[in-house]
Amino acid sequence: MEQQQKQGQRSDVIAGRNAVQEALRSGRTIDSLYVTRGTHTGSLVSLIAQAKKKGIAIKEADSRKLDFLCGNANHQGVVAIAAVKEYATVEDIFALAEQRGEAPFILLADELEDPHNLGAILRTAECTGAHGVIIPRRRAVGLTYAVGKASAGAVEYVPVARVTNMAKTIEELKARGVWIYAADMDGQNWCTVDYSGPVGLVIGNEGSGVSRLIKEKADFIVSLPMAGHINSLNASVACGVLCYEIARQRQQIPSR
Amino acid sequence: MEQQQKQGQRSDVIAGRNAVQEALRSGRTIDSLYVTRGTHTGSLVSLIAQAKKKGIAIKEADSRKLDFLCGNANHQGVVAIAAVKEYATVEDIFALAEQRGEAPFILLADELEDPHNLGAILRTAECTGAHGVIIPRRRAVGLTYAVGKASAGAVEYVPVARVTNMAKTIEELKARGVWIYAADMDGQNWCTVDYSGPVGLVIGNEGSGVSRLIKEKADFIVSLPMAGHINSLNASVACGVLCYEIARQRQQIPSR
Repeated sequence: MEQQQKQGQRSDVIAGRNAVQEALRSGRTIDSLYVTRGTHTGSLVSLIAQAKKKGIAIKEADSRKLDFLCGNANHQGVVAIAAVKEYATVEDIFALAEQRGEAPFILLADELEDPHNLGAILRTAECTGAHGVIIPRRRAVGLTYAVGKASAGAVEYVPVARVTNMAKTIEELKARGVWIYAADMDGQNWCTVDYSGPVGLVIGNEGSGVSRLIKEKADFIVSLPMAGHINSLNASVACGVLCYEIARQRQQIPSR
Repeated sequence: MEQQQKQGQRSDVIAGRNAVQEALRSGRTIDSLYVTRGTHTGSLVSLIAQAKKKGIAIKEADSRKLDFLCGNANHQGVVAIAAVKEYATVEDIFALAEQRGEAPFILLADELEDPHNLGAILRTAECTGAHGVIIPRRRAVGLTYAVGKASAGAVEYVPVARVTNMAKTIEELKARGVWIYAADMDGQNWCTVDYSGPVGLVIGNEGSGVSRLIKEKADFIVSLPMAGHINSLNASVACGVLCYEIARQRQQIPSR
């Protein structure tokens, strides 16, 4: 809770028109740009145009939300959230697999909202030898300060690529020989499936799971059987169980 | 973030001397009592004495922290945090195993601090058929609102017992035939260990892991091998991977 209160001191929050303009000019990687809801005037119009051109997610919010984000600094209607790490490309992820002489092992985190989950997934990716994580540009948490913190340093090592259209990216991965495994209910038992080839593992949104479109594109639906009354694991926990089965089968991790 | 701002509206926060007195008298399960640091006077002395008698954790904090906890209500130096669920006993956990006709499968979450982790562990416990979770009374997150929320309903089903001395509880479990498995580095590979008997799985603190004392008492140290540069998984993720291996071996979950 104390962390929330001190948010104004976070180095990744850039408030005010001049400061945001400077950040955009310097080429710093901006994760998202918060602007006040409503009609935009003056230099704000130009800032939004520049951000759009760079592919930065623009988020409209109440002025009070902006106040909160920047610890009540004088934000003049605009707050930029810098990414804690440069994004990689899908090509970088394939290059890392090739460099290691391994079949690609890629995680696709589709529309995750909780920074704790994305952070924990980055740790899991690093610990199980995955070559990278692909996330969507919109409707998902990016490489924010909270994600970096929850990743316990993994954000420095795991390439994270951000794509505009996850379904299209999945088609491209399939065309390059990657088998797509979507984690969802009513699929094959997770430990009866062969993960020895190139693997793309899709983890869906915390509330709604993997989207129908992406499930249709998947080669396999893999499921963790559930005992008990509730029917869902935490997204990063499910990802961890699946990644360790993948790593176990591929023997990419030492088996002491 | 918005959740944090609205904390004053949370139904589990009880602020002010009369309100806390009423909550104590009604027998409502209080997780912890926050009091302002320094000398206590008047009815506060009595409240602290009553709370101590009930085994409630007393936490001294700055007045500002209390302001924050109760959304700037007039707390008069005391804020109680109610538990979202009644605590069970270790006996309840054994009774559940017996009722299901299964060897006990118990999680021991030792000094976890992050409510997201305890919540995720409760979900995992429920989904893998564990009979309960044991947590320490002090230096650990309890069944708070945030834990209940992160548990996605699992808190309603999984018995959670709170004990004063985890090391002593482990001795008692061992005396009842439970094998203690501590998750830590440099142990046996997690999937080469037999979990078919009564299992007590210890998950340690997020930062410092399982304490030395408890490691010494464990029958097995089980480890998840790690690739990459960082050497630790998120605590709830590690717990999930281990629980699924345990459940897989014990066939307590359907294997569709």
